[in-house]
Amino acid sequence: MTAEPPVAGRAGDPVVVALDVGGTGMKCALVRPDGSVVHAERHPTGADRGPDAVVGTILDVAEGLADTARAGGFTPQALGVAVPGVIDEATGVAVWSANLGFRDVPLRKLAAERLGLPTALGHDVRAGGLAEARLGAGRGTRHVLFVAVGTGIAAAHVVDGSAAVGAHGAAGEIGHILVRPNGPRCGCGGIGCLEAVASAAAIGRRYAELSGEPGSTAAEVVERAVAGEELAREVWSSAVEALADGLATGQALFDVQTIVLGGGLVRAGRHLLDPLRTAVRERMTFHREPRLVAATLGDEAGCLGAALLALDSLET
Amino acid sequence: MTAEPPVAGRAGDPVVVALDVGGTGMKCALVRPDGSVVHAERHPTGADRGPDAVVGTILDVAEGLADTARAGGFTPQALGVAVPGVIDEATGVAVWSANLGFRDVPLRKLAAERLGLPTALGHDVRAGGLAEARLGAGRGTRHVLFVAVGTGIAAAHVVDGSAAVGAHGAAGEIGHILVRPNGPRCGCGGIGCLEAVASAAAIGRRYAELSGEPGSTAAEVVERAVAGEELAREVWSSAVEALADGLATGQALFDVQTIVLGGGLVRAGRHLLDPLRTAVRERMTFHREPRLVAATLGDEAGCLGAALLALDSLET
Repeated sequence: MTAEPPVAGRAGDPVVVALDVGGTGMKCALVRPDGSVVHAERHPTGADRGPDAVVGTILDVAEGLADTARAGGFTPQALGVAVPGVIDEATGVAVWSANLGFRDVPLRKLAAERLGLPTALGHDVRAGGLAEARLGAGRGTRHVLFVAVGTGIAAAHVVDGSAAVGAHGAAGEIGHILVRPNGPRCGCGGIGCLEAVASAAAIGRRYAELSGEPGSTAAEVVERAVAGEELAREVWSSAVEALADGLATGQALFDVQTIVLGGGLVRAGRHLLDPLRTAVRERMTFHREPRLVAATLGDEAGCLGAALLALDSLET
Repeated sequence: MTAEPPVAGRAGDPVVVALDVGGTGMKCALVRPDGSVVHAERHPTGADRGPDAVVGTILDVAEGLADTARAGGFTPQALGVAVPGVIDEATGVAVWSANLGFRDVPLRKLAAERLGLPTALGHDVRAGGLAEARLGAGRGTRHVLFVAVGTGIAAAHVVDGSAAVGAHGAAGEIGHILVRPNGPRCGCGGIGCLEAVASAAAIGRRYAELSGEPGSTAAEVVERAVAGEELAREVWSSAVEALADGLATGQALFDVQTIVLGGGLVRAGRHLLDPLRTAVRERMTFHREPRLVAATLGDEAGCLGAALLALDSLET
């Protein structure tokens, strides 16, 4: 008796293999051309093993997924891989990724050779933005700014279903725009960057400094702010104001219809979105106020975006 | 004896009619498909006569240029008009222009009806950026940010020869991004906008405030700074630092190869560009430093850009 295959399609149904490689884990899926997921799995990245081992795992997992697809009667047609850092999507090279230890890794070429499939390499936040714009909270609008606020802050500007990449694969770094000239030093070396003031990490750090309670998290700060604790309210409110400054700058430059807020901080729900909408509105002097909404795809956005990149690569 | 026609082409040579309508004057030209100008003329806008009269003058001047083209043996094929303010290029409507008193003027439709030619309506700074990117200082690079620093500050992000318009025709408003949270109030109603700190008008105003000499201009401030006057050096240096903050934010979000600096302030030449390059370089923590160059088309950029919009409209 043979085991049931984990997925089952009609003979030859096309799918793409999609991987979103993060610093700790990989989210992986087989995705149909309509964006529906027929199979999903997760693996640890094991970044502490060094970049070569991570590349090996990416290729093994991708090959395994292609086999899983075939075993289920699907035809894998392309591979999409999203990674963090500076990604040159045109050449398919991961130029620099601190989380993965990558420097100039020709990941697209390596994967295409191993799997024998057309392969697209993309940036994790841009892939996530693509998915939110086309399949998630931005669906139906042509001009979308996706802003992921978690440990760091980064954005993807998506127009007509395509995310801006920039000249060197580094567009959308909204975490590293100046919002507080006399503010704290940022991990990037700059002063007063949005990420240094309004990321989940920055909020926890700021509260810990002022309260003397090391290890405070942004989630705890929100909870205490909602419960009425004065210090938590101040820290939360400062972060929301800084975030509104950053989003207002984004709107001045991009002029979008919809700003989709993703990343861990959006789990604060209306405690984030309500005051943030008010603060953004106050900053719109002659610009049209964008619709500000929470992301709807959660942590699957990057993987779905990788699938969209793979699907798009088949069209061109 | 008949007068010589002002221009002369080979029978039927195609040209487009281009107008750049500013608050005080209109720059107008007949332009060949290769971007060369066969005839140029200027007219006062007469904005004090009200929006209807300005529209009438635009249409008269455009019709006159088409007649001039025909008299010289050219065939006018399309019309391009650039105007300041919020321009909906998709619908061809000048949504709002303070300088011209326009509110929801369907200028493309009006001009197309009067001249019987395909007509493109564009934004003056975006048109100028298009021309600098394709024919001027940005020629040969795919990702260009054009920043015009004069009485106001505005930008155009040009990728592959096309300027981003935004969802509501208001993209590129780099003059209205926050750079100094406790800075002066801006004309737009905001606080600490780049334009309120680093425009030519702001520089003159700041120096006048501190020196007690009303009516000081940015040109005088540069001159005095170069001559070693301490107050002028301080004012100039603060403006350059703020401008560098704004350009660094632009680079973080757009990731371009080339920033082209236009507008009146660029007449300061190396007294602007040298310290600005240094200040921008200091702010590049992990981003690639963009090439920072002066615009080369001067005040004809907007008119040439209007011609490019007209030519592009023939291709689609």
